[in-house]
Amino acid sequence: MALDDAKQTLLPELKDHSHVNEKNDLQRRRPWRSSSSPELDTHRPDQNAVQTPSPLVPLAAKSKFSFRQVFMLLAAHLGGGTLCFFLIRNQIKGTKTNGFLDAIYFCVVTMTTVGYGDLVPDSMLAKLLACIDVFTGMALVGLILSKAADYIVEKQEIILARAIHLGEKVGPAELLKEVETHKIKYKFLMTATILMILIFMGILFLYLVENLEFMDAFYCVCSTITTLGYGDQSFSTSVGRTFAVFWILGSTICLAQFFLYLAELSTERRQRSLAKWVLTRRLSPSDLEAADLDHDKVVSAAEFIVYELKEMGKISEHDISVIMERFEKLDYDQSGTLTATDLKILCSGLPAAT
Amino acid sequence: MALDDAKQTLLPELKDHSHVNEKNDLQRRRPWRSSSSPELDTHRPDQNAVQTPSPLVPLAAKSKFSFRQVFMLLAAHLGGGTLCFFLIRNQIKGTKTNGFLDAIYFCVVTMTTVGYGDLVPDSMLAKLLACIDVFTGMALVGLILSKAADYIVEKQEIILARAIHLGEKVGPAELLKEVETHKIKYKFLMTATILMILIFMGILFLYLVENLEFMDAFYCVCSTITTLGYGDQSFSTSVGRTFAVFWILGSTICLAQFFLYLAELSTERRQRSLAKWVLTRRLSPSDLEAADLDHDKVVSAAEFIVYELKEMGKISEHDISVIMERFEKLDYDQSGTLTATDLKILCSGLPAAT
Repeated sequence: MALDDAKQTLLPELKDHSHVNEKNDLQRRRPWRSSSSPELDTHRPDQNAVQTPSPLVPLAAKSKFSFRQVFMLLAAHLGGGTLCFFLIRNQIKGTKTNGFLDAIYFCVVTMTTVGYGDLVPDSMLAKLLACIDVFTGMALVGLILSKAADYIVEKQEIILARAIHLGEKVGPAELLKEVETHKIKYKFLMTATILMILIFMGILFLYLVENLEFMDAFYCVCSTITTLGYGDQSFSTSVGRTFAVFWILGSTICLAQFFLYLAELSTERRQRSLAKWVLTRRLSPSDLEAADLDHDKVVSAAEFIVYELKEMGKISEHDISVIMERFEKLDYDQSGTLTATDLKILCSGLPAAT
Repeated sequence: MALDDAKQTLLPELKDHSHVNEKNDLQRRRPWRSSSSPELDTHRPDQNAVQTPSPLVPLAAKSKFSFRQVFMLLAAHLGGGTLCFFLIRNQIKGTKTNGFLDAIYFCVVTMTTVGYGDLVPDSMLAKLLACIDVFTGMALVGLILSKAADYIVEKQEIILARAIHLGEKVGPAELLKEVETHKIKYKFLMTATILMILIFMGILFLYLVENLEFMDAFYCVCSTITTLGYGDQSFSTSVGRTFAVFWILGSTICLAQFFLYLAELSTERRQRSLAKWVLTRRLSPSDLEAADLDHDKVVSAAEFIVYELKEMGKISEHDISVIMERFEKLDYDQSGTLTATDLKILCSGLPAAT
């Protein structure tokens, strides 16, 4: 087919021009070289450059940076919180163990909004600090959910895919494609697996170390991971609170992430069913007419792509109109198409208004 | 300009063909009639229809239905929860007022994960019911956040925009455009306003009715809306618990929505800065080459739109390739464009394989 050929012949050219390391078959199949990462593009002519310096770093690097940033923020928050509560440890009442341990335990129980109430602030200052801790903690947990947790799960999902397809003859490329296509499903399954392990660990610990009955241990785990924290059952020993610091942080975030992926999964399913409807519906002459952007009575591949994307709700009228504005500005000879001529006029400076 | 003219001449045709009620200038400017809502399209030929019946309802109607559905679910959850906890009221220990009121108060405090601990389950059955209440409650609150709350805020944001631009000479069309462009900003501001009112109401109520000191009232409000709920300060009177049922539900959801919009706002800002970079960067000959999908040495408006959307990260390679697959299937004469001829072949039945 004509367009298939066009796509095929495009590939060798791309390989010659692109300096991006291509990791796998999937990425090698991309019809267009991405120039979203200015650093990677060594072919952009710099003479007569009027371009404003871009503040953007490559997206992948940015996302990695955020992960480290979030981790540092969490460490800073825990460190600062623990120090504050340690200094005012006499203004906190309740079941106490070790001064330092109680401070970090109180900080975690507060920032995750579990709030058992086995330790409660007993002065204006302590109450104010607890309020600050819970608000900043909530924002931080939100940040972890949106940046770090997703990043960690993404790193693990290929392992899960490998485990699921164990014994089957599936190559690494197919496995990667499977994970790419059902990204959210694998993330959801990965999170569910981790959550199950954390719940099991919690019950076992409360049963063995805190000497709770099995049902009470289960109830305490549910009450904690959901951040309910009535406080009738909580961690009262030194060993228990040491475990609790890590376990509460991990399990509350994991459950929240579980619900987030569940929501994403349902959104994705809805979007897929809409996309499927768009892609299988019968095309009418009025569809063709509506898709024909340049009114030449035929619908090109690109026109069809734009029309279908819009029907799927993936792009909006506004997205299209801002790009159209730019197109019209770039199209100096007003031919309705962008050519090398337009770029030459652009490079030689702005022409007189026509 | 050529393309501007094309857009202008397209408009009267659209008005003739479209039966969609056009509410305002903004919508009237849409270059393409949307056919995402099959029910609204009366021009689709039905003879020889091979299309599978679409299970999709119009998106707007679907979203309204979801809102009602969510409200019914909330009512069912509260009703069922209250009945259960009322029936086992002797298996709940703590500060009690009125049997029915305590049951609904306990249900709300549990499902929002506030968990003061002023009322705690005292039997295996009560603990199990509390666990069920908190998990289903969390899922329900998540559903409210993703469906109903957004819907309510959307209805209100025009009021806020009107209030902000009070005294200025701004027409209703401009106001609507302003809200459309800065949708998330207005939603965020609206939620912040409601949150402030709820916090103020809570403090005032605790101060006047529950006779707490001002700072304790503030601390109790913070501890509640964040769902921390240590339980050292809570609602202990009949009047207080009646107020709490509505106020806790409203304020915890409102704070969560506030954080959600804050996150959306930052995502939107990042997307906008990327879009701005894409739309202001200098176009190089290699960009033109990459955008030229059909290899005819010129870049049409639609090709440019697809290329820029991809650079902005709004659409993926996968989005494009599935539509390209469909395009190639529809293009029976393999001309590289879709024409009325292709549709005719499609209508007269599948041709022999070429």
